[in-house]
Amino acid sequence: MEWIKDGNFDFLKKRKVEAKEEAQKSVAAIIETVKANGDKALKAYTKQFDRIDLESIRVTEADMSEAAARVPEPVLAAIKQSAQNIRAFHEKQIPQSWTETVEHGVVLGQKVTPLDSVGVYVPGGTACYPSSVLMGAIPALVAGVNRVVLVSPPQKNGLIADGVLAAAREIGIREIYQVGGAQAIAALAYGTETILPVDKIAGPGNLYVMLAKKHVFGDVAIDSLAGPSEIAVVADETANAAWIAADLLSQAEHDRLSMPVLVTTSQTFGEQVEQEIEKQLADLPRADIASASVQSAGKIVLAANSNEAAEAINQIAPEHLELATKDPYALLPLIRHAGAIFLGKYSSEPVGDYFAGPNHIIPTNGSARYASPLGVESFVKRSSIIEYSDAALQANGQAIAAFARFEGLEGHARAVEKRMKGAVIHG
Amino acid sequence: MEWIKDGNFDFLKKRKVEAKEEAQKSVAAIIETVKANGDKALKAYTKQFDRIDLESIRVTEADMSEAAARVPEPVLAAIKQSAQNIRAFHEKQIPQSWTETVEHGVVLGQKVTPLDSVGVYVPGGTACYPSSVLMGAIPALVAGVNRVVLVSPPQKNGLIADGVLAAAREIGIREIYQVGGAQAIAALAYGTETILPVDKIAGPGNLYVMLAKKHVFGDVAIDSLAGPSEIAVVADETANAAWIAADLLSQAEHDRLSMPVLVTTSQTFGEQVEQEIEKQLADLPRADIASASVQSAGKIVLAANSNEAAEAINQIAPEHLELATKDPYALLPLIRHAGAIFLGKYSSEPVGDYFAGPNHIIPTNGSARYASPLGVESFVKRSSIIEYSDAALQANGQAIAAFARFEGLEGHARAVEKRMKGAVIHG
Repeated sequence: MEWIKDGNFDFLKKRKVEAKEEAQKSVAAIIETVKANGDKALKAYTKQFDRIDLESIRVTEADMSEAAARVPEPVLAAIKQSAQNIRAFHEKQIPQSWTETVEHGVVLGQKVTPLDSVGVYVPGGTACYPSSVLMGAIPALVAGVNRVVLVSPPQKNGLIADGVLAAAREIGIREIYQVGGAQAIAALAYGTETILPVDKIAGPGNLYVMLAKKHVFGDVAIDSLAGPSEIAVVADETANAAWIAADLLSQAEHDRLSMPVLVTTSQTFGEQVEQEIEKQLADLPRADIASASVQSAGKIVLAANSNEAAEAINQIAPEHLELATKDPYALLPLIRHAGAIFLGKYSSEPVGDYFAGPNHIIPTNGSARYASPLGVESFVKRSSIIEYSDAALQANGQAIAAFARFEGLEGHARAVEKRMKGAVIHG
Repeated sequence: MEWIKDGNFDFLKKRKVEAKEEAQKSVAAIIETVKANGDKALKAYTKQFDRIDLESIRVTEADMSEAAARVPEPVLAAIKQSAQNIRAFHEKQIPQSWTETVEHGVVLGQKVTPLDSVGVYVPGGTACYPSSVLMGAIPALVAGVNRVVLVSPPQKNGLIADGVLAAAREIGIREIYQVGGAQAIAALAYGTETILPVDKIAGPGNLYVMLAKKHVFGDVAIDSLAGPSEIAVVADETANAAWIAADLLSQAEHDRLSMPVLVTTSQTFGEQVEQEIEKQLADLPRADIASASVQSAGKIVLAANSNEAAEAINQIAPEHLELATKDPYALLPLIRHAGAIFLGKYSSEPVGDYFAGPNHIIPTNGSARYASPLGVESFVKRSSIIEYSDAALQANGQAIAAFARFEGLEGHARAVEKRMKGAVIHG
């Protein structure tokens, strides 16, 4: 862990992974090929990148139930309880339509409508993330999206990971395609013979998936461009150094590029955490990944007081933030930028990754400055409602026409004025 | 107007304006140059594209008050009233933070925070759109954004249009830069000596502005990629053909690529509107633009009944929709995709462009399928709140650890388990 004692946050500038032009070109080519050749291209890319000869692009019902049967019972139970918690939290996010009658009997409002169709990308390859299925799909289901589709790359055995299929089955998703990478994003955006296009694509993926999502953005909606995981912990000497070290390592083990940061007012505590990290790394299965992350991006920021600590967090705008101080609620109002905020000593970050209910698909790379965790809001849209009245038109028509005419839009002015006269003739 | 009588909506596929690779490259080069050379690049591009030698990139207080003094009093009054209406509507959109205590004393919730800084692009050149200032900036101000910045290209006289400056002054915006195009977007995204970067860029612009917004997306947030204006009107024989024709023309006069569509169950009514359009075009100042739009993209869709009419609208997903039928509220529940919905005969679309209160920056190009009008939601973000309890951890720790371990993330499991033991040792 590198110590930052001078309030210099230049290390944040290195956080952004710049995509090479070569990768961008290769993604653009994949997308064009899928657009042109559909399923044939999907199969060819799956053979090339995943080394699998796909018989069927769509996962069968039999594959799903067999996969679920292979998942241990305690894990299935955890998936089930987690799904319930996620659903309960997201049900509180459902925005409501409203209308209101204002002056002259004018009705204004907003109509909230779920999207028609959504595709959720679930990372695959060597890993298996049923939690990503729950976090990506449940908000869409709660929003009322009619068609929620899953895509995920096949593993070495030619199938999507058992846990992913089991989680999908648990929440009632039946339309699943075993394709991944940029080719899966292209299929979701533009459709193939087998895969109908969707309106929005959500879920994290590797660099190619992210580049593909940026490429198709504008033709369909996307949720965000996710980068490596981040955790920042604000802790004082009342915190437990071993617990905090374990939390920092839990995010470090995700990716060599993950960023674990401790912000503390106590140099002694910082040193204790540093020692604990070394100790716990010794027998961590993913120690190679975690220690690469700790060494390249791990920081201990020494802050003079809680204001400085909060300001450090606002500069970092971390994906995950733990406030492990004596009075975390005193610190909370000072925090402007963080994706998910964990308060108090029992709020270990993995509790949020798996179980508590709030989403674990959270803005990274400092985008918590302007973006939100995935949620029901991500899968609905608002339509404005305007019912103007004759009285309002007579009262305001002149002002509206004057405004339009000033902008040089005579047609706009006339559309309003016709009704002002019309109210007499046709009224 | 082309008649569509067979339910074939293939014309929608032509709606999308494909950006030429050349334009994309030129935008990328402009952005890189502004990144590298800052203010110097802004001045050079302003000379090249706007033919103006900028003395000052920032608009002075004196320029603002002199500009406001040149705007006619009735227009200033309309701007003032419009700003009040827009503010009142958007104040109803402010999302609230919440927390809730669930089982085992666990606290879950959401903290809503305004963005720190926002840049609003206001189109310029030959036109003058004070309404875009109000619609772009007021939602950000209502959201509580601390720094709201305006950029707009200088006109031939070397200044931003009077009306734009007057509108900005009316709503209290003082940080305005007289630069436009892709160079202005680059400055907002990455900053120059004069312009500090912002967290989100909103507002419509020409093709270069849109390409620049897509290019910087991911480094900063953007609102949407706007295309030419669209209006769809569902009208039956109870509607006034002259009024509907005027409404269709009001959007046609925006742009040669604008799309005016009438959906009607009455062939006779459709023919009347067609005749009215010809008649009204005869003395419309922007007749050249409006008739190009009517000829190239204007459609009259004949629907058998209101279900078919609604389905036509859902296929089009228009930016603006008027329901000018006998009972528009009966039709409303069938509409899934439309940016702003105007109900009844007095709800002429320009009423919404200028005055009613809902936003006029609305998804185009079919993106009303998945996107919303600009609003307060566009300028706040949510942070999840999780305070887990000792009791909840003891009750659920095993399930969480089992889930994490199943995903191969041992570090996650250990972070939780440490506290399960820890609750005894350190509790």
